[in-house]
Amino acid sequence: MRPNSHEWKAGSTHAPNRDYRWDGPAGMGLALRWARAGETIIIGSRDEQRAQIAAAAIQRRAGNNANVSGLENSAACAAADILMLTVPFDGQATLLKQLKPAITEGSILIDTTVPLAASVGGRASRILGVWQGSAAQQTAELVPAGVSVVAAFHNLSADLLNGDDDLDCDVIVCSDDPDAAQLTRELAAKIPGVRAVDGGKLENARIVEQITALLVGLNIRHKGHSGIRITGLPPSAYR
Amino acid sequence: MRPNSHEWKAGSTHAPNRDYRWDGPAGMGLALRWARAGETIIIGSRDEQRAQIAAAAIQRRAGNNANVSGLENSAACAAADILMLTVPFDGQATLLKQLKPAITEGSILIDTTVPLAASVGGRASRILGVWQGSAAQQTAELVPAGVSVVAAFHNLSADLLNGDDDLDCDVIVCSDDPDAAQLTRELAAKIPGVRAVDGGKLENARIVEQITALLVGLNIRHKGHSGIRITGLPPSAYR
Repeated sequence: MRPNSHEWKAGSTHAPNRDYRWDGPAGMGLALRWARAGETIIIGSRDEQRAQIAAAAIQRRAGNNANVSGLENSAACAAADILMLTVPFDGQATLLKQLKPAITEGSILIDTTVPLAASVGGRASRILGVWQGSAAQQTAELVPAGVSVVAAFHNLSADLLNGDDDLDCDVIVCSDDPDAAQLTRELAAKIPGVRAVDGGKLENARIVEQITALLVGLNIRHKGHSGIRITGLPPSAYR
Repeated sequence: MRPNSHEWKAGSTHAPNRDYRWDGPAGMGLALRWARAGETIIIGSRDEQRAQIAAAAIQRRAGNNANVSGLENSAACAAADILMLTVPFDGQATLLKQLKPAITEGSILIDTTVPLAASVGGRASRILGVWQGSAAQQTAELVPAGVSVVAAFHNLSADLLNGDDDLDCDVIVCSDDPDAAQLTRELAAKIPGVRAVDGGKLENARIVEQITALLVGLNIRHKGHSGIRITGLPPSAYR
């Protein structure tokens, strides 16, 4: 495992809602935060040039010590050990099928997908039913054997991630692989202001994904960038 | 409307999990908090004597100025203008059908039901699918015309409600009746430490109900009494 090497997939060419613009603001924001924390970032895109432009923009903001590059998606998958999937739900399965040959055994795939109804023309405050139970479980069905899927980062505001202030949000991490979940919680905790919480098995991702639709509704209703904090747990819950 | 008169239904004779014991700890805890805040409380039960015993226990803890009484369920429904439903999911529909003739037009029914799989012998960290979308929407189908249904209070720890400390949790309130939602938010804000958030339409209750299953899982995993806070919203969101 190379814990300092992360691919960040942000490529998507359409915009079902503001959180999933073609330039992948959630993905860009996470990449920015991790680049600042000293992680090696590879931006993946269908178009290598676009990936490089995005990488250069993050490099510029994160400073000279950051290590951010851009590659075509398959090359990015092959080059990284921790893969982040941040595409709209309607592109998730197709992309995973395309990339399956490039995803190497032993890698970790962190899925941030939220099956918002907006991805099929509905409302961003509603969720589609996914046969497997959650977008993350759909992902788990589509990756090669020996790849661990983790669901996390669904509830972070892309706008806030792309800013410079500390966040005020917890990240609930769900996975059937305790080691992959632990590594993901450590990554989450590198984002200033974020605490990571062990959310148990991957099947629990269905609830965490749905919380995003609730937060989108709150954002629309109250003009904010909402997130959640879990209260009432001992400090050991955030390790 | 008599905003100081609340029926509190807590009657249930079985115990699918710790949050839904026969003595209805969530219901008792809310009644205790509102009795202390000066609200008039009527405890409802299938058995009037049991209701009176529960009422006396709350009266004792809430002090001499509290106004807590106990009635059989139908009498309680007829006597109150705001009805709280706090029974396990498997008892919800049957009870509502029984009580339908006693629920008066113009009253508000606040539904706290969470369709935990535990109510049919499954896990308390899993949720049943409800045809209408949520337990609250099932309730809306079963109440007489002219009764407003509000979904709220799902995510409060019964143990913490029954204690004396301030809570550290937000209550997300969902309803298709803005006035009933507003009244419910005012009630929620009377619980020390609680902020109420407008969660939009009743259909959104499906997400808020599911959050409880996530919190149950966190409580089991981390030995806590978890709740949630919504972050990133302006102060106006909590009115």
